[in-house]
Amino acid sequence: MSMLPKFAKTPEPPYYAVIFSSMRRDDGYTQMAERMVELASRQPGFLGVESVRGIAGFGITVSYWTSGGAIAAWKANVEHLAAQEKGKQKWYEHYELRVAKVERAYAKPSA
Amino acid sequence: MSMLPKFAKTPEPPYYAVIFSSMRRDDGYTQMAERMVELASRQPGFLGVESVRGIAGFGITVSYWTSGGAIAAWKANVEHLAAQEKGKQKWYEHYELRVAKVERAYAKPSA
Repeated sequence: MSMLPKFAKTPEPPYYAVIFSSMRRDDGYTQMAERMVELASRQPGFLGVESVRGIAGFGITVSYWTSGGAIAAWKANVEHLAAQEKGKQKWYEHYELRVAKVERAYAKPSA
Repeated sequence: MSMLPKFAKTPEPPYYAVIFSSMRRDDGYTQMAERMVELASRQPGFLGVESVRGIAGFGITVSYWTSGGAIAAWKANVEHLAAQEKGKQKWYEHYELRVAKVERAYAKPSA
């Protein structure tokens, strides 16, 4: 997903993170993934996303959100629901999804 | 870091996640990274780690911990402190570190 900026520009905590770790098993994935980022970035409360997939098919995508409500609204997005279903049926051999509240953040160089 | 299991086996929430996103700029890194995982896995409160680095040098490592106190103890580990310093001086062009409390988690297939 080379269209992505690498680091998310997030505000002072608290805010929320969705940590999505997945093992991909099929093709036709990249276009969907880019479309989901485009869609998510238009959702209220979207702060940014960081994503990387290694050569072995294992990937981690962390999206950042202002609140749990913003995450729930994104989860319920109709086009996103269709992608979630296709992901379960086709793309992901396995995934783990964790919703977490970011309490502290540091960067180098200091922001 | 092919020595790593890909998915962390984490308990029911709540627990903690450290999301470490970084842009690497130098060599001599892999050995240190593997040593840090080895060290971390012996720390009290360590639950697991997920890590991936893409071809462009951008990586995300998420380590999971039972509590904020366990994270603080790991941060203060003497060998880890030396690696943190070397990381700042040598390895990382930039990084973002976020400490987050995991509130909900889902997996496929269901655990």
